[in-house]
Amino acid sequence: MDIKQKVGKKIKELRELNNQSQKDLAYSCDLDRSYIASVENGKRNISIVNLEKISIALNVPLSQIFINETKP
Amino acid sequence: MDIKQKVGKKIKELRELNNQSQKDLAYSCDLDRSYIASVENGKRNISIVNLEKISIALNVPLSQIFINETKP
Repeated sequence: MDIKQKVGKKIKELRELNNQSQKDLAYSCDLDRSYIASVENGKRNISIVNLEKISIALNVPLSQIFINETKP
Repeated sequence: MDIKQKVGKKIKELRELNNQSQKDLAYSCDLDRSYIASVENGKRNISIVNLEKISIALNVPLSQIFINETKP
């Protein structure tokens, strides 16, 4: 799994933990739903500015997106 | 300070902790020295693929680049 896929998987996990749909997340970080979908599918070499928008909308520190385990 | 500046500052801190020059870091992550300089100056909206290259060359986990304090 490359970094794009890892980050996408993690964002999806965190979004689902928040019971947010892709549409909810896209709306709250002012990004397109299809963009969120492509990030979660590991298709995007996302930049830190957009990553920060997503971390704010997920209400997690940016570092959390790069930490592997979320299971409590 | 925006996210580009925070990440740049952190990369510089970690590079200096490793006693690496920008040239050393650029060489070991196969990126241009001027690119490293612009990242450290907060001028680059760096992507996760390049960020991963830099974290590997700095020998730190990617999450470390987003954690604020490095003082032991």
